[in-house]
Amino acid sequence: MKPFTGKIGLIGAGAMGGLYGAKLFQAGHDVHFLMRRDYDAVRRNGLKVFSHMGDFEIRPPVYNSAAALGRCDLVIVGLKTTDNASLAELLRPVVGPDTLVLTLQNGLGNEDHIARDLEEIGNPESRGGQTAESIGPIGPMSPMGPIPPAADRVLGGVAFVCCNRTEPGVLRHTDHGWIRLAEFSGPARGRTHAIAELFRSAGLTIEVHDSLAQIRWMKLVWNVPFNGLGVGAGHATSRMVLEDETLLRVARGLMEEVVAGARADGVVIAPSYIDDMIAATESMGHYRSSMQIDYEAGRPLEVESILGEPVRRARRAGIPTPRMEFLYGVVRRLDALRRAAKTEMD
Amino acid sequence: MKPFTGKIGLIGAGAMGGLYGAKLFQAGHDVHFLMRRDYDAVRRNGLKVFSHMGDFEIRPPVYNSAAALGRCDLVIVGLKTTDNASLAELLRPVVGPDTLVLTLQNGLGNEDHIARDLEEIGNPESRGGQTAESIGPIGPMSPMGPIPPAADRVLGGVAFVCCNRTEPGVLRHTDHGWIRLAEFSGPARGRTHAIAELFRSAGLTIEVHDSLAQIRWMKLVWNVPFNGLGVGAGHATSRMVLEDETLLRVARGLMEEVVAGARADGVVIAPSYIDDMIAATESMGHYRSSMQIDYEAGRPLEVESILGEPVRRARRAGIPTPRMEFLYGVVRRLDALRRAAKTEMD
Repeated sequence: MKPFTGKIGLIGAGAMGGLYGAKLFQAGHDVHFLMRRDYDAVRRNGLKVFSHMGDFEIRPPVYNSAAALGRCDLVIVGLKTTDNASLAELLRPVVGPDTLVLTLQNGLGNEDHIARDLEEIGNPESRGGQTAESIGPIGPMSPMGPIPPAADRVLGGVAFVCCNRTEPGVLRHTDHGWIRLAEFSGPARGRTHAIAELFRSAGLTIEVHDSLAQIRWMKLVWNVPFNGLGVGAGHATSRMVLEDETLLRVARGLMEEVVAGARADGVVIAPSYIDDMIAATESMGHYRSSMQIDYEAGRPLEVESILGEPVRRARRAGIPTPRMEFLYGVVRRLDALRRAAKTEMD
Repeated sequence: MKPFTGKIGLIGAGAMGGLYGAKLFQAGHDVHFLMRRDYDAVRRNGLKVFSHMGDFEIRPPVYNSAAALGRCDLVIVGLKTTDNASLAELLRPVVGPDTLVLTLQNGLGNEDHIARDLEEIGNPESRGGQTAESIGPIGPMSPMGPIPPAADRVLGGVAFVCCNRTEPGVLRHTDHGWIRLAEFSGPARGRTHAIAELFRSAGLTIEVHDSLAQIRWMKLVWNVPFNGLGVGAGHATSRMVLEDETLLRVARGLMEEVVAGARADGVVIAPSYIDDMIAATESMGHYRSSMQIDYEAGRPLEVESILGEPVRRARRAGIPTPRMEFLYGVVRRLDALRRAAKTEMD
């Protein structure tokens, strides 16, 4: 299998997107960066990566508008899901009828969102007066209606990587880096494997799966309790949860609810996976989840994709998720309070 | 029925205990106040009550040690449940073999605690090397073993009152004031009604009930969600909970769990009571619960009696309480964090 070739655009080149883009660029691929905060720094000084896989520095083509970036063959989306509402306008100038879009964002519903955006870009009249909210999620993970043709151009990936942006144009990659990849609609096909080869050619580990729902829900088994409790339970690190008898019961209960929600989505996760995740977490020390880091930094939280959408999907399937709903309610409120406080300060 | 007569000692004469004691003293009863924070102020200037039932001022006998207070015929306990560990030493000098003890404290387990304290005071060898924790709750509400004879001298009351201590020796009583009263072991009897008459003679409304478990669990239907979420869900007032669709679902779910926990304790609460409580809460505006006020003031929270003990009792009965356990875990952690921060500051 030959790697995917063509013009690759990175939208939302923060820590995670920036790292993957840098690795692909370093491996000789035609990668273009759309950046906001880091545009000036990268244009002047390039992008520096301090990585446990080896430090390097690149001077990639960088743009501060989607129009300047222009049409791509593959778009990789690393935007925070809190910015999904602005994704359509970023995608519009960069996607053509054959452009593939791979989202590496967190949680559920992002592929649905992108498919709707692509549909609207291709058929500006298709949405009528409806908003994304009123349409609701679509697609194979939660059949809410017909899958739009544009869903066929969307792929999703789940990234396991520890990488932080330490200053403009500087990334610190401390652990992991691998990806699980799947098509949004249907099993893996030739192009899925070609995109996987693209990442492998850059020295990255990537697994191709036949079910996006499977890889998304499996990631949530960890993300729901440890992202959520890191904010909702008084800044608890992973170890604090494990060492508190009640919170550990809560975390296990949350994991069981994710497994039940997944089952309603046709995804079977073995109960032993919960024990595996607990054991893996025990080795992580006082790990601060991305949501906890965002919260402590005063940034918006990915509360809808990581907590809200799983709760809504389980509810539509009639699966009770009392703990997950509780966590969603609390974290959403804390996020809103933080935003309100920030607005007052601004 | 004649009112109870005899020497009445008030232990923990904060806002609630102080108010009831003041009303009883004003009505001519032989009431004696054991005070800590307010001792100097009340000894010098008396106790002032600004009440919607009428302002008044009294100069009652006040003591700063249980030994000085001496033996009483009826002891009314208004101590915060967070101070229960120090209750035995306060009770020791004031109880004789026939002294009755009425606790007006919040939550579950306080009567158990007092019965154990009385048993130990009466039979210093009875506990051996065991701590209260290792014995666990006892008594008719959660039969964990033989009821000690001392349980027969314990009564419990649930107070519905809005009263704050605004400065040393000054109380502001803004609403309600009524009490539900029951024996710890068994149905109401003559003395129960005599104690009720005591309160009535002071112009207070008091209902006598035949089941302590009934009145305690019914109060928890409100206290668990609104005390708990007021701390655990980002300082949510009662109205904020009602206006947030997810948190309102969580609150209803918590109430249903309290009703289920009550049922395992032999207490039947009609499902319509949940709607009644929601409706009553709607009329309360942005009400801050006692636990929320304590939290915002940096005081220890009554987390064990209001949340921990109901969770433990339900768990022993095999009743799942996922939301209540979650709330308990979160609030206990926030309480511990607050105490740790306070210790650092001190």
